[in-house]
Amino acid sequence: MIKAPYLLFIGNAPDLLAAKVANGIAQWRRDKVIGQWRFPECSIDLNVGDISIDDAIAKGAKTLVIGVANRGGVIDQSWLPILCEALEKGLDLACGLHQQLQSIDVLVEKAAKYGRSLHDVRVGRHDYPIAKGTSRKGKRVVMVGTDCSVGKMYTALALEMAFKKRGLSASFKATGQTGILIEGSGVPADAVISDFLAGSIEQLTPETDDNHWDFVEGQGSLCHPSFSGVTLGLLHGAMPTHMVMCHEPNREHMRGLPGRPLPKMDDAIKIFNTAASIVNPKAKVSAICVNSSSMDDAKAKDYLKMLEDMHDMPATDPVRFSLDKIVDLLIKNS
Amino acid sequence: MIKAPYLLFIGNAPDLLAAKVANGIAQWRRDKVIGQWRFPECSIDLNVGDISIDDAIAKGAKTLVIGVANRGGVIDQSWLPILCEALEKGLDLACGLHQQLQSIDVLVEKAAKYGRSLHDVRVGRHDYPIAKGTSRKGKRVVMVGTDCSVGKMYTALALEMAFKKRGLSASFKATGQTGILIEGSGVPADAVISDFLAGSIEQLTPETDDNHWDFVEGQGSLCHPSFSGVTLGLLHGAMPTHMVMCHEPNREHMRGLPGRPLPKMDDAIKIFNTAASIVNPKAKVSAICVNSSSMDDAKAKDYLKMLEDMHDMPATDPVRFSLDKIVDLLIKNS
Repeated sequence: MIKAPYLLFIGNAPDLLAAKVANGIAQWRRDKVIGQWRFPECSIDLNVGDISIDDAIAKGAKTLVIGVANRGGVIDQSWLPILCEALEKGLDLACGLHQQLQSIDVLVEKAAKYGRSLHDVRVGRHDYPIAKGTSRKGKRVVMVGTDCSVGKMYTALALEMAFKKRGLSASFKATGQTGILIEGSGVPADAVISDFLAGSIEQLTPETDDNHWDFVEGQGSLCHPSFSGVTLGLLHGAMPTHMVMCHEPNREHMRGLPGRPLPKMDDAIKIFNTAASIVNPKAKVSAICVNSSSMDDAKAKDYLKMLEDMHDMPATDPVRFSLDKIVDLLIKNS
Repeated sequence: MIKAPYLLFIGNAPDLLAAKVANGIAQWRRDKVIGQWRFPECSIDLNVGDISIDDAIAKGAKTLVIGVANRGGVIDQSWLPILCEALEKGLDLACGLHQQLQSIDVLVEKAAKYGRSLHDVRVGRHDYPIAKGTSRKGKRVVMVGTDCSVGKMYTALALEMAFKKRGLSASFKATGQTGILIEGSGVPADAVISDFLAGSIEQLTPETDDNHWDFVEGQGSLCHPSFSGVTLGLLHGAMPTHMVMCHEPNREHMRGLPGRPLPKMDDAIKIFNTAASIVNPKAKVSAICVNSSSMDDAKAKDYLKMLEDMHDMPATDPVRFSLDKIVDLLIKNS
């Protein structure tokens, strides 16, 4: 568990994509953010206010989150003085980059000396149990996808927010680095030893009140041969009561696999329904969420209407349009 | 790669089940075995001849394989003098237990001092690639199952042997601890980090001659929620051309999951065919292999005939009866 509130470190991020972790936290967990720290030459602004380490601590900040990525996922040498200052003055550090905080001697030494924690959220723990596979109370909506990086995390966060706006009990369950930094906890599914993957997700999504909704970030896709094992272990560990299919309509091929076309939506839905039926025959894909950012409003609405007619279920862009129809349907089917 | 030939260490094994690794090696790779080493009070005999460490080395032994398991999977204190002697006199050590050779200081020191290798086959490497998911030449028959521990390794080894007896080019591809110790190489699928599982199996089963047959040991089952992610990552990484369904007819519930019934054979076949179609629409379950050890001959034959009629494909017990029909069918469908 990463202690909030956060100071968001965006360093020398050249654009908003490089600062997507910080941006995601600012967008979805604004209440956890004290402010941003950036180098004077950085032109990216998350509109959460610039703040010094001293002032952030005075305002209650507990953790400096490295919210910027660079090529190679390394911790830039130029960041080290600030990271050391943060440790010395009283902040923990959290990081989702490939290079680990734990791999940098000076940070390890400072953390030990000042009693701070270094959270490397890309690293799986080694004490997850084997999954029990028993059914349990509570609603668990797993975001699934036709491909990797099609908006599963955003959809889960948007659904959580929509449910909370209706006064319902809801949580976001993070399974990837960005999601874990946004939520402050979670399981880095792709970094878990295969044998314990389902167990780690089972532990992340324990039995709850019958009226509680967990929105579980999915990973990869059953249709993506590089990562399908991660997807299925996660799906079975979460033991879904519902699934939402996420889709990005402009892919020429599966992510990272030139030449491999995306599955047809119908086939993807069938494959996920079949897979989920092994743990819960009632769990079905019952809605579609699309990243329609490449389309203008009219085109996006036409496209979503076509999906709704074709698959006989609500379809929306969860960031751009209303989620009401999907929220209504999930509640109706619960 | 574990260097052969082997000296099989069965120590103080109380029964054959405890010595199943050594027994498997003796059964399937007799040509790699120089002999067995056991304590005087041990009554288990693999019928490969008792031999001292000195004599085994004189006959060319390269590795002492710990072929015995005990409760907890630990390396017994009483074994250490023999293991040290083996290292001092010139043998590598190989072990598939939970406790690692690498965790025992005296073994690490001796191995370093005498330049020997310690092979802990339960440990996944950390340099596997992400799977490319591209199709490749060669035949890859993946053993799949209705449950865990239903004879997938034995079936793969029996098929390899049957193909070799016909003069065909065939390999066994090990994905579990026992299989790796039998073959001397392989990938411990369940110990690989999820993200790299498919890639590790892809690396284990690279493109081959069009006429070569790889028989790939499967793991778990798509129908077993604790391990289904391992099963699917393995299946997609192997990119099967054929599948053989393995089954144990006397299970009251899925292994380790009291209350969860086994899938119907028809459903299991459909689920694997659907999953395999994502990487190869031509790959189908085309035969059934059963562990019929609990039945007498007549009952086993009746049962297999019933499976054949019901599912319209050959069924056999690969250890007890002929594999000819399955070999013929695989060759015909290639």
